[in-house]
Amino acid sequence: MSIAFASRQPAPAWLDALRAALPEESLREVGELSDSEAATVDIAIVADPDPAQLARLTSIKWIHSVWAGVERLVPLARERALPLVRLHDPELARTMAEAVLAWTYYLQRDMRAYAANQRAAVWQPRPYRVPSETTVTLVGLGELGSAAAARLLDAGFRVRGWSRTQKHIPGVECYVGLSVLGTSIAKADIVVLLVPLTPETKGLFNTSTFAAMKRGASLINFARGAVIARDALFDALNSGQLQHAVLDVFEQEPLPADDPFWRHPAVTVLPHISAPTNRRTAAKIVAENIRRYRADAGLPEFVDLERGY
Amino acid sequence: MSIAFASRQPAPAWLDALRAALPEESLREVGELSDSEAATVDIAIVADPDPAQLARLTSIKWIHSVWAGVERLVPLARERALPLVRLHDPELARTMAEAVLAWTYYLQRDMRAYAANQRAAVWQPRPYRVPSETTVTLVGLGELGSAAAARLLDAGFRVRGWSRTQKHIPGVECYVGLSVLGTSIAKADIVVLLVPLTPETKGLFNTSTFAAMKRGASLINFARGAVIARDALFDALNSGQLQHAVLDVFEQEPLPADDPFWRHPAVTVLPHISAPTNRRTAAKIVAENIRRYRADAGLPEFVDLERGY
Repeated sequence: MSIAFASRQPAPAWLDALRAALPEESLREVGELSDSEAATVDIAIVADPDPAQLARLTSIKWIHSVWAGVERLVPLARERALPLVRLHDPELARTMAEAVLAWTYYLQRDMRAYAANQRAAVWQPRPYRVPSETTVTLVGLGELGSAAAARLLDAGFRVRGWSRTQKHIPGVECYVGLSVLGTSIAKADIVVLLVPLTPETKGLFNTSTFAAMKRGASLINFARGAVIARDALFDALNSGQLQHAVLDVFEQEPLPADDPFWRHPAVTVLPHISAPTNRRTAAKIVAENIRRYRADAGLPEFVDLERGY
Repeated sequence: MSIAFASRQPAPAWLDALRAALPEESLREVGELSDSEAATVDIAIVADPDPAQLARLTSIKWIHSVWAGVERLVPLARERALPLVRLHDPELARTMAEAVLAWTYYLQRDMRAYAANQRAAVWQPRPYRVPSETTVTLVGLGELGSAAAARLLDAGFRVRGWSRTQKHIPGVECYVGLSVLGTSIAKADIVVLLVPLTPETKGLFNTSTFAAMKRGASLINFARGAVIARDALFDALNSGQLQHAVLDVFEQEPLPADDPFWRHPAVTVLPHISAPTNRRTAAKIVAENIRRYRADAGLPEFVDLERGY
């Protein structure tokens, strides 16, 4: 019984944090293990692992991801019918909710336009729109979306939400199911994407979704790049259907230096920083899950591999 | 008994808002009045008036400013010993508190640096500092400062405040008086200026004040340009003592196109937009004050002309 850590890139900071949180366990990197050692590992802790690394761990009973997004792990776990646990960290929800509010202000307060004016030495106050007359639709109302809704409500914004399954959040108009996605975003000044990437959400924002939005609305993508159909987004930005897009996630990361997103005047590119995982709090949660398992073989809530999250 | 409206620049939107809020009053622009008409006016409502406009109103009993900042009116009111009323609008405090939070996020979330990285197509996540480890000192704890403190606390920041007279705000470490200004800002990552401009606060932030700040801290000025000694600010920015300054107010506005603030890489220039007055709510408050006066000759709280606010 031992634990292996697997990640495509070297991740010494993660190893340090996990070892500090789990001093009683033997926790080694997959690459350091002999085949026979690898065969005795019963739990894999992973941060974007290579499938070949996981293949060496022939006796694992379950996989714990240190992140909340697990779209690349789902097919691997499915193939071996292994329980997959993703990170549920209240600190992550807090940070993401903060990011949603911060970048909503960025759009509402026209920070991008003022920066452009500064470069041209142009003194030009712009009309101010109060939050109580600004509608934000959150696409995705899980832990992250619910936390974001609370912060936006508290800041005085009108909040709507869309999700796959029914949610009840006081003060939020909640819409359920694909058939009303268009309705949920039709009046939004700002739409924020917070859904997991699944076969259902891949390309969820496409030409017809953008057409359902109010002309001149803006978009924030804090979910996954592939939730947006890239060409449709360029069309919507170029036609003025969308005023601005804040993009923190991309199908290929880091975003290649020649990608046109970098230079599009209506796009803000961020390097996947909306809600950086706090390694210390995340490692503590992983450690608690593992201790509970060691004590009574009880698994934490795991991912529905059909649904994908 | 009638009301005159005086402003240096034509202000039709203000006239419309005030007339809509005060339909029972005769409300005319100073410039439209004959001398004998001007002599019958008993109340002046003003938005940055020319002193010559006020001089024509020989019988006014008091002056109502549609704005909260009255540093240019104080000497005029003093000269004629006229009560001067400034705007106390809860909506203004709400908007300013929002601006403080929004631009605090701008600094905390490194929005400026990410924009520069985008222009260079550089994918570079920066370290994230949680609000609970970020100290903001509010210099000025009046209506605006108190409202800002509440929003920052709610967002999880550590908040300190400095004021001329003792304030008690739950959760805020309050410092009183010039002798402890340095102490109040010594640990701040971000200092926000919200004091009125008075003889006491002119140049309050100067070489020695900047030296009292933590190296690499940032500054937000939502007060008045002259609260900062301009040359000292340039020195502090150029030496790295200050990391960044968000400046919304300037001694000369609009800021002249050749002013070096526009092009300084460590300065964000905003065109006095932190808390735009809401003409509708402001006109309503002015109207209530005037109706109360018509009813019982009672004046609203007015400015202490010695203190300056």
